[in-house]
Amino acid sequence: MHITIENAAKAIEEAIRKAREIDTFMCIAIVDSGADLKAFHRMDDAWVGSIDIAIKKAKTAVFFGMPTGEIGKLSQPGKPLYGIEHSNQGLITFPGGLPIVDKDGVMIGAIGVSGSSVENDHAVATAGAQALGTWELPAHPWRT
Amino acid sequence: MHITIENAAKAIEEAIRKAREIDTFMCIAIVDSGADLKAFHRMDDAWVGSIDIAIKKAKTAVFFGMPTGEIGKLSQPGKPLYGIEHSNQGLITFPGGLPIVDKDGVMIGAIGVSGSSVENDHAVATAGAQALGTWELPAHPWRT
Amino acid sequence: MHITIENAAKAIEEAIRKAREIDTFMCIAIVDSGADLKAFHRMDDAWVGSIDIAIKKAKTAVFFGMPTGEIGKLSQPGKPLYGIEHSNQGLITFPGGLPIVDKDGVMIGAIGVSGSSVENDHAVATAGAQALGTWELPAHPWRT
Amino acid sequence: MHITIENAAKAIEEAIRKAREIDTFMCIAIVDSGADLKAFHRMDDAWVGSIDIAIKKAKTAVFFGMPTGEIGKLSQPGKPLYGIEHSNQGLITFPGGLPIVDKDGVMIGAIGVSGSSVENDHAVATAGAQALGTWELPAHPWRT
Repeated sequence: MHITIENAAKAIEEAIRKAREIDTFMCIAIVDSGADLKAFHRMDDAWVGSIDIAIKKAKTAVFFGMPTGEIGKLSQPGKPLYGIEHSNQGLITFPGGLPIVDKDGVMIGAIGVSGSSVENDHAVATAGAQALGTWELPAHPWRT
Repeated sequence: MHITIENAAKAIEEAIRKAREIDTFMCIAIVDSGADLKAFHRMDDAWVGSIDIAIKKAKTAVFFGMPTGEIGKLSQPGKPLYGIEHSNQGLITFPGGLPIVDKDGVMIGAIGVSGSSVENDHAVATAGAQALGTWELPAHPWRT
Repeated sequence: MHITIENAAKAIEEAIRKAREIDTFMCIAIVDSGADLKAFHRMDDAWVGSIDIAIKKAKTAVFFGMPTGEIGKLSQPGKPLYGIEHSNQGLITFPGGLPIVDKDGVMIGAIGVSGSSVENDHAVATAGAQALGTWELPAHPWRT
Repeated sequence: MHITIENAAKAIEEAIRKAREIDTFMCIAIVDSGADLKAFHRMDDAWVGSIDIAIKKAKTAVFFGMPTGEIGKLSQPGKPLYGIEHSNQGLITFPGGLPIVDKDGVMIGAIGVSGSSVENDHAVATAGAQALGTWELPAHPWRT
């Protein structure tokens, strides 16, 4: 089952709560397991440049079933996946994108957050994903 | 003043209410007066192809400060704006996109709706825009 | 459930059988319900230009849950969806793309065929879709 | 002679056999010597993000008549081909793409594999290429 809009809204709500708690202004995107946009929310005063980054982080996370930051470790110069960002019309491979995995270990979508430091982006994405389950997934998650 | 997220959420809420009333499944996009995405909501079972159309309708409406359908009348073969859809990385020029104009006659953003007939798309967009003001704007509205 | 590769292969096999029967050279694409490519087959001597058309037809069919030719009727000059082809990075709206609907009425993907007349393209796509179920779907099919 | 669909299917079959042997879920793309897609196969549970990467690896291999990983060595920061990934609508320059060279030393196409580590991707691509000949080609192979 792809993520429902009810669940997408819940994830965004929790992400916003966290974003406010740490005093940041975020763009938050939710995609389904086909990497198609389900919901998007830009807080007032969030960077306009973060719109596309948040969406690309969510897509990247669902594209490969892993946190975006994990891909970024492998895409540095000299590393195995150097240049992977050129695929899929542009990936974002630094932290802030996380798969959303339900209680059965199935990846139902992903969340992407952009608007502050990558640590803050990751923290807000985590809050959103955990509202629905987890982003800690098996080595190769099933996709709905 | 660009549209606030509070107002964007209110417009989406009213649009959803109307969409349900007429038994449709819609994608609803809100952009600010810079044509940058502010909020997006895809109802469960809405067409995946409507994601991009809803966003492009909202952008098109704010790009030219008029309902998308008005542009479509001018972009037919033999008409003055024939082919305008090729600009701005793709316009959608049939009904379903409307500027959002506040009580001072200032265009603060736009709403784009896709998922049903163009009549239904227009009706849902109207409900969203009217939650914040109107889409009936002066010949050339002020932009925030 | 997205279309499986076993089923995608079966649809392609039936499409090829039909293509040979009517003495044509086809490109055949299968996408899942997220519009992501699952399988592709270009018969020897098929047009190179048909590669992208077959893929876009499959995507278009799943984007809107209907045969591509139905959209094309509505996208003619003066019709309600004129210019819709500018969305989603390019649609193909003439016949040859069909949703694939399982026995529960759920759209699990789509098939796109290009390489001959639109009548032949449609006939081959029909053979492929019917290998798995049907493309005659409810007014608004559920998506996996 | 461009690769035939019969041969493309044989290469994919061998690649799948290898992919299963090492317990991976792969996207496998075959292009002809014009870099145009001939066949594509996404195993169930393969990453959606690997679709485009597999296709781009195959194209990259045929574009330059060499294994993708060889180009990647030259495209690192400070190296002669730094940034080459920006050409041709996006290259992938890490391992997993291999030319397919027939027994006469003629490059008839290429295979691109994505879905696991670059070592596994390369192993599966090798199995596919070797089903038809080799990927070890003369300094500048003839192209059909």
